[in-house]
Amino acid sequence: MKLCIVGIGLLGGSFALGIKDKISDLKITGVDANPEHAKKALELGIVQEILNLEAAVAEADLIVLAIPVNAIISLLPRVLDVMASTAIVIDLGSTKELICAAVQDHPRRHQFVAVHPIAGTENTGPEAAFASLLPGKTMIICEKEKSDPVAVQLIEELCRNLEMRISYMDAASHDLHLAYVSHLSHISSFALGITVLDKEKNEQNIFDMAGSGFSSTVRLAKSSPDMWAPIFTQNGKNISEALASYIEKLQFFKKIIDNQDESSSYALMKEANEIRRILQGIK
Amino acid sequence: MKLCIVGIGLLGGSFALGIKDKISDLKITGVDANPEHAKKALELGIVQEILNLEAAVAEADLIVLAIPVNAIISLLPRVLDVMASTAIVIDLGSTKELICAAVQDHPRRHQFVAVHPIAGTENTGPEAAFASLLPGKTMIICEKEKSDPVAVQLIEELCRNLEMRISYMDAASHDLHLAYVSHLSHISSFALGITVLDKEKNEQNIFDMAGSGFSSTVRLAKSSPDMWAPIFTQNGKNISEALASYIEKLQFFKKIIDNQDESSSYALMKEANEIRRILQGIK
Repeated sequence: MKLCIVGIGLLGGSFALGIKDKISDLKITGVDANPEHAKKALELGIVQEILNLEAAVAEADLIVLAIPVNAIISLLPRVLDVMASTAIVIDLGSTKELICAAVQDHPRRHQFVAVHPIAGTENTGPEAAFASLLPGKTMIICEKEKSDPVAVQLIEELCRNLEMRISYMDAASHDLHLAYVSHLSHISSFALGITVLDKEKNEQNIFDMAGSGFSSTVRLAKSSPDMWAPIFTQNGKNISEALASYIEKLQFFKKIIDNQDESSSYALMKEANEIRRILQGIK
Repeated sequence: MKLCIVGIGLLGGSFALGIKDKISDLKITGVDANPEHAKKALELGIVQEILNLEAAVAEADLIVLAIPVNAIISLLPRVLDVMASTAIVIDLGSTKELICAAVQDHPRRHQFVAVHPIAGTENTGPEAAFASLLPGKTMIICEKEKSDPVAVQLIEELCRNLEMRISYMDAASHDLHLAYVSHLSHISSFALGITVLDKEKNEQNIFDMAGSGFSSTVRLAKSSPDMWAPIFTQNGKNISEALASYIEKLQFFKKIIDNQDESSSYALMKEANEIRRILQGIK
């Protein structure tokens, strides 16, 4: 099988590294807009060859779009146009509704499977990729019914090879849920980073006084703006709703603290503690 | 030396475990309001004997108050009253201003050293304690000038034994900075947990769709309300200021997203990315 990774960064690179020893007779080619990343991906053995988009897509059996969600929307129709009539394309984007809408009337819509692996780190580029990123994680497949059953079957088989759980969902539900369990976390973390940087002009203070709690909560503030700015635009409506709800909870918390209402503060935290039970098992 | 740990939980227990092999001829006694915790601490070898507060304090050379900050305020004057005239007491509380104020006129104020180790996890109780929690972390000593130099010297020596960095600060600055780099993180995390729990009534959705990013950001929402409710009360003014600033940043982020202003969103995240450089070295 000829696999073509478009965007050889954290996710695309980890997909390639995770799958490369699992499938016999696999050739992996790569496409990357950043020549440094392309070179590095070759050096690291993530891909065997670097090609331009048209050439790579034309000869591939499976194309993986691991690029920012705005780039997926502009590239996906072109990829469907030029790829072989038996080839399959998937995207790994963190939004699904607008991406699916962008190709809903494309004559080759059935050759596209919309997926989203629930996996990532705050790091970017081919050097951030590692084979164990995807195993054990969930792959969400959206609008399965609009894809060729054979194409879906191949992707499901790949997921099993990668030891991923599979979950099925419509694109609108995907985007709504992700706004809460992923996109909101990123904004809460970016805003926390900015708040602390604004206040603590003396970096030594942060270094001396911040502990592992702060590091953990602010970790996602290191994430790539190239990847996240388009996600916040594409999923703006859902994220805005989630943010409004989050701000409301914070305002309520502030009121409780201003009132020195310790029993309400205690009750609110007890409620939040419930997340411990649910998170057990999420790594 | 006779060391008495009052509150044999995560911090008190880790202090005992970290120090016990570093000092020769050390006897560690424990006091805990929770008989289960006391029993467990004995079983785990964290302390050698369980005593009641008065008996333990009366015979100790060094008393460590590792209890919630409201309990520190009520116990500390009593401990100063009954301890030996050559003994030293420290507290490990996450606020310092009200604790120092509570004993500022105590005739034995000089026998008290106000400290705060920048270390912790979201877990509680003696089973959560581990010897490597404190090594490599920062110990903040407040109002050093109000303590007997010999007492300060002993605590500095203990910190060096525990391989901790030492930082000196006045109590008001401590509480202001901690509001930003620690207390705010906890509230952002508690509020995130509640927001997601409120929306996602179906727990399976959280389990299927939440990744390591959410887990990391919401980790502190598992923290103990017994410990945190009094901190939020005692440091209310500073936390309220930090929260107001955080809410303002979130509102600004929301406005940008509502306006689909992708370049401002990008710029804001680039600014937050600066935290990566500062966090290097914080474990």
